Amino acid sequence: MKKMRVGILAGTGMVGQKYIQLLEDHPWFEVVYISASERSAGKKYSEAVKGRWHLSTDLPKNIAEINVSKMNEIAKCKECCDFVFSALGSAPAKEWEEKYAEAGIPVVSNASAHRHDKDVPMIVPEINSDHLKIIPIQQRNRNWKDGFIAVKPNCSLQSYLTPLFALHKKFKLKRAIITTMQAVSGAGYPGVSSYDLIDNVVPFIPGEEEKSEFEPRKILGDIVGNEIVNNNDFRISAHCNRVPVIDGHLATVSVDFEIKPSREEILKIWKEFKGISQEYNLPSAPKQPIIYREESDRPQPKLDRDIDKGMAVTVGRLREGNVFQYRFVGLSHNTVRGAAGGGILNAELLVKEGFIS
Amino acid sequence: MKKMRVGILAGTGMVGQKYIQLLEDHPWFEVVYISASERSAGKKYSEAVKGRWHLSTDLPKNIAEINVSKMNEIAKCKECCDFVFSALGSAPAKEWEEKYAEAGIPVVSNASAHRHDKDVPMIVPEINSDHLKIIPIQQRNRNWKDGFIAVKPNCSLQSYLTPLFALHKKFKLKRAIITTMQAVSGAGYPGVSSYDLIDNVVPFIPGEEEKSEFEPRKILGDIVGNEIVNNNDFRISAHCNRVPVIDGHLATVSVDFEIKPSREEILKIWKEFKGISQEYNLPSAPKQPIIYREESDRPQPKLDRDIDKGMAVTVGRLREGNVFQYRFVGLSHNTVRGAAGGGILNAELLVKEGFIS
Amino acid sequence: MKKMRVGILAGTGMVGQKYIQLLEDHPWFEVVYISASERSAGKKYSEAVKGRWHLSTDLPKNIAEINVSKMNEIAKCKECCDFVFSALGSAPAKEWEEKYAEAGIPVVSNASAHRHDKDVPMIVPEINSDHLKIIPIQQRNRNWKDGFIAVKPNCSLQSYLTPLFALHKKFKLKRAIITTMQAVSGAGYPGVSSYDLIDNVVPFIPGEEEKSEFEPRKILGDIVGNEIVNNNDFRISAHCNRVPVIDGHLATVSVDFEIKPSREEILKIWKEFKGISQEYNLPSAPKQPIIYREESDRPQPKLDRDIDKGMAVTVGRLREGNVFQYRFVGLSHNTVRGAAGGGILNAELLVKEGFIS
Amino acid sequence: MKKMRVGILAGTGMVGQKYIQLLEDHPWFEVVYISASERSAGKKYSEAVKGRWHLSTDLPKNIAEINVSKMNEIAKCKECCDFVFSALGSAPAKEWEEKYAEAGIPVVSNASAHRHDKDVPMIVPEINSDHLKIIPIQQRNRNWKDGFIAVKPNCSLQSYLTPLFALHKKFKLKRAIITTMQAVSGAGYPGVSSYDLIDNVVPFIPGEEEKSEFEPRKILGDIVGNEIVNNNDFRISAHCNRVPVIDGHLATVSVDFEIKPSREEILKIWKEFKGISQEYNLPSAPKQPIIYREESDRPQPKLDRDIDKGMAVTVGRLREGNVFQYRFVGLSHNTVRGAAGGGILNAELLVKEGFIS
Repeated sequence: MKKMRVGILAGTGMVGQKYIQLLEDHPWFEVVYISASERSAGKKYSEAVKGRWHLSTDLPKNIAEINVSKMNEIAKCKECCDFVFSALGSAPAKEWEEKYAEAGIPVVSNASAHRHDKDVPMIVPEINSDHLKIIPIQQRNRNWKDGFIAVKPNCSLQSYLTPLFALHKKFKLKRAIITTMQAVSGAGYPGVSSYDLIDNVVPFIPGEEEKSEFEPRKILGDIVGNEIVNNNDFRISAHCNRVPVIDGHLATVSVDFEIKPSREEILKIWKEFKGISQEYNLPSAPKQPIIYREESDRPQPKLDRDIDKGMAVTVGRLREGNVFQYRFVGLSHNTVRGAAGGGILNAELLVKEGFIS
Repeated sequence: MKKMRVGILAGTGMVGQKYIQLLEDHPWFEVVYISASERSAGKKYSEAVKGRWHLSTDLPKNIAEINVSKMNEIAKCKECCDFVFSALGSAPAKEWEEKYAEAGIPVVSNASAHRHDKDVPMIVPEINSDHLKIIPIQQRNRNWKDGFIAVKPNCSLQSYLTPLFALHKKFKLKRAIITTMQAVSGAGYPGVSSYDLIDNVVPFIPGEEEKSEFEPRKILGDIVGNEIVNNNDFRISAHCNRVPVIDGHLATVSVDFEIKPSREEILKIWKEFKGISQEYNLPSAPKQPIIYREESDRPQPKLDRDIDKGMAVTVGRLREGNVFQYRFVGLSHNTVRGAAGGGILNAELLVKEGFIS
Repeated sequence: MKKMRVGILAGTGMVGQKYIQLLEDHPWFEVVYISASERSAGKKYSEAVKGRWHLSTDLPKNIAEINVSKMNEIAKCKECCDFVFSALGSAPAKEWEEKYAEAGIPVVSNASAHRHDKDVPMIVPEINSDHLKIIPIQQRNRNWKDGFIAVKPNCSLQSYLTPLFALHKKFKLKRAIITTMQAVSGAGYPGVSSYDLIDNVVPFIPGEEEKSEFEPRKILGDIVGNEIVNNNDFRISAHCNRVPVIDGHLATVSVDFEIKPSREEILKIWKEFKGISQEYNLPSAPKQPIIYREESDRPQPKLDRDIDKGMAVTVGRLREGNVFQYRFVGLSHNTVRGAAGGGILNAELLVKEGFIS
Repeated sequence: MKKMRVGILAGTGMVGQKYIQLLEDHPWFEVVYISASERSAGKKYSEAVKGRWHLSTDLPKNIAEINVSKMNEIAKCKECCDFVFSALGSAPAKEWEEKYAEAGIPVVSNASAHRHDKDVPMIVPEINSDHLKIIPIQQRNRNWKDGFIAVKPNCSLQSYLTPLFALHKKFKLKRAIITTMQAVSGAGYPGVSSYDLIDNVVPFIPGEEEKSEFEPRKILGDIVGNEIVNNNDFRISAHCNRVPVIDGHLATVSVDFEIKPSREEILKIWKEFKGISQEYNLPSAPKQPIIYREESDRPQPKLDRDIDKGMAVTVGRLREGNVFQYRFVGLSHNTVRGAAGGGILNAELLVKEGFIS
């Protein structure tokens, strides 16, 4: 099979670099186009990230030679790419993603800019791949031909939403109170100053709690008529904290369901849970999306974030609560499952389902 | 005024050293007796802690010369001390605290051994100084003459229980879900391995959640007849985590009251809150027991733990929740307010109220 | 005594804030003027540092109300200030310090901009207060009337230069090889990304090794004719590293002297060493400028940086080397002794010696 | 090829676990025997390390089932093993390694106990594989038949000794002054308390400087008659520090050679350097033993420790010194190249050279 040619919008930042690292040797995709801000555009990629390549694997040689394009070289992108990943920040995503889509280029995005749009699917493949059906409606709404925008949710959700969803199908999620302890790579680069995080925790991340509370409503929503209608039958409350950890967002979860499951039911459901990524055996799909650790002190970011290439969610410490029915701890790798890896998995799903070709 | 002479049981460990540091230049108390395990007993204190004095202030000279006693030199203690602080671990506390009390020595303890005893007061001076009335009953029950045991609660509570209590008086606490991010000094020395905590969070601390859930029931309970009866009208659920922070336990709190207060009421109550320590103007009492920070990202352990000599609780981020009525973040210094400083404040209260003389 | 009125150039950055913290309650100086870049100018100081006040003590109330001036409001500064501290970065220092001096304002600077100027004294009070004699020459050279520039050296030197100087007087420094492990506060704010420093050491700090190697030559130099002539009789070689420590620069030192001292001589000299700051009993002077710790594992940044208000240098581990004569470890607080505290001490000396009045 | 069966002495500690992790899927070796102290002996391995398995990969299933033997079950070991790896501490190594060797079992050791023995080879395969010729002499000396002891040097050397040796062959090493910044995994488990290492550096590691200074003399020595004679023609002086890094020892090196090489010569020699591990293409050998990074701020532990499975040494920042001829920075993975990986490479060499069969 000939590899599909892909572009990366904002390919020089933390998430862009992670895309490049994860796409090295990808069986389906090959990076041929990278755009970035004025500062980097016009340079070779290796020059553009000189002194700013943050990863422990070396910059792939073929990528090093790519000439970084300006954001507005959309025609060039259209010519050489089958689709693009967007690692843009929120403001530029608002400006550029629609322009790329309008030009006929599918945009698989990490950005928050379009997550509230009722005709833009926000996908976790194991949860709501059916939302992809909104894409033709989106194209009709916006008068786009081949292009469209599909997004992934915020990184902070990944450590608990899939485990909750697995149970929600049978027991109906009612309410959850969540505290996240989030890694610094989630803040981009340079992100949080080391002065603020040595011997410290910062109990606030701008915008993060709102995303944690809203986005699950949409992901667990339904397509009704021509739009995705949020699920307002449950409530989530989040406290988001920044901790001195490089990678891996940890969450403590207290949860009530409409019907109280037994401990055994929960563990069985988590163990047997599979989604469409596993059915399709997508290249980036974890074998087992939810891994339960029996040890009393797991999951831990350092020990569990890289499990199954960083694409699985690890849970542990399931126990009854004395306020809500259950408590547990969840963990996922924020720049893999929660960002670039999640975007790639979405793209694989879009290819498999025929939305990208 | 002549200073009272005090002993420290287990004076060589992390908490014992903190007692010694905080009692240097104390206006009422002077350390004259230190006991420790066999390994240290018989040595001069400076020898006993050689290579293990962990604090950034130097070992006080007069303390350095004290000969460390064996735990069983109770008669010697009785002779020279007006009372003792116990920094014993749970198991030795069970063994030794009663023996000291039986010998007529008041024991002001940090240990968990007697926290469940219905005739032992577990005191936070600003909350339940009235529980001291159980002491004569304890002495009668146990046939003790001058000795008794008074304890303080676990360090993990301090960052949220006083703020909750201040509101409870008027609005009745109904339920709270709490996640703590606790400093390593809380684990004693050597405590947690650096291998486990660099680039990591450990989402489990043995026994800590049980203490966080039970102890508030007793502290907010009442003396009925000859015992302290727990308050079972509210429920607390806790997730306790160890984070790479030296000092200062941080807690995210979600809470429901029987009557929902307004934001203004809460802030006013916190601001104006005073307890008996403030009324008596005890030497170790913070001027303002609860300090609210307006900044969006406070309290932080590194910035706020030392406020008012480490004896105040700092709160911040008060906001409505979308599951429970309110959310906030609390912080207290775990080895000061949460351990040695809290013990000293208890002793000051016991002196002022005439239980120690 | 009426306090002298002082200004701070670049008063909103990391070093500027430290100046403000250290000058609160200073017996001789009172901050009345603060200048900063366009972004902050025109705002109240409390507004200008909102969300960027990094210190654990609160912003002093009187400072909070000061209106931040533009850099070019030199006339206003002249009117209200007896002298200024400059916490400017190197480039703006080059631009502005001379303008302030020309306007008749003494500038006590932390910046590197003028350290190479042969008529600008680079002062460590305990070492080379005699270099102040160059000031009248500087004023003549530059046709300045009351203004002048006096600078302090780079923060990385402080942990070893004073101990070396104390020995140099008798035994003549020949050569030294030094490795520094420097705290993140030395990089300003936001400085080093936490992503780069959790579980890591960065073995490079731009410009730092050059400063470490050059500046001691000037400090140990002599005034000959109308200029300070560097001392080129010894050589220093430095490796500078950034480590995950908040405050406190640590240095390992290997050193050869022309005449080999005995261990006892070294310890005696360090113990008895006093400088002019101690003779004058300057308000910010440490009682003992060099403190030797006998423990095998000291000095350590966390334990020793704050000794004597952060103004003393702590040394330890003196032992013979098997390449050079001796080895030892030195430590100093980089934002106190190495930056704002050192600047204040210089100003105190300048006042005492009559250069500022 | 049938795999050789190997034992691990002290298989439950930090280094023992690393052996087990690295030997999973080893093409030549299979772990069949594990011994440990009384506390663990008699248990299944999975039980023995319960709550103490520190690695992010799971315990291999076949290893989990192994019954841990007592140290004195030497006969059992002899029966089932072709040779053993010793991860013993220094004191038990002194006691047990000779007993295993006497029983006819080759012992490939990480311990320091026999490093000073003149008939025990201390091997870095790329440097001194010729020292293996001492083994028959050792066996004759000690009246051992098939058993022998071969050791590897201390982990702190690996980051600089191979780069120095590569140059030494042509330019003769004269003297070097080295400062190491060593990771916590080098201290075993639990090793250094997190209380001592958050926001801190400890400038002392017991015994480490002596090893750093002595061991290179033996490794660069020659077999003369019946013993290894140390090379005393050069001198090394070391400062060893513990830094808050999980894995990877970093060293700053200042060095003089008898003949001063040019920068180009050094870089060429490092680039082209190969040892016997590369000639034999041993399974654990790095492709390129010395990797030079051009970036101004490398090597860094977090980014470079895992290069080539953690078996290569990374160097950078080569520049002239102004005391010695050259300066550079070196890095190696202390528990891989510096411990278990180095031991495995030694065993592979011993097999290839026919000493183990």
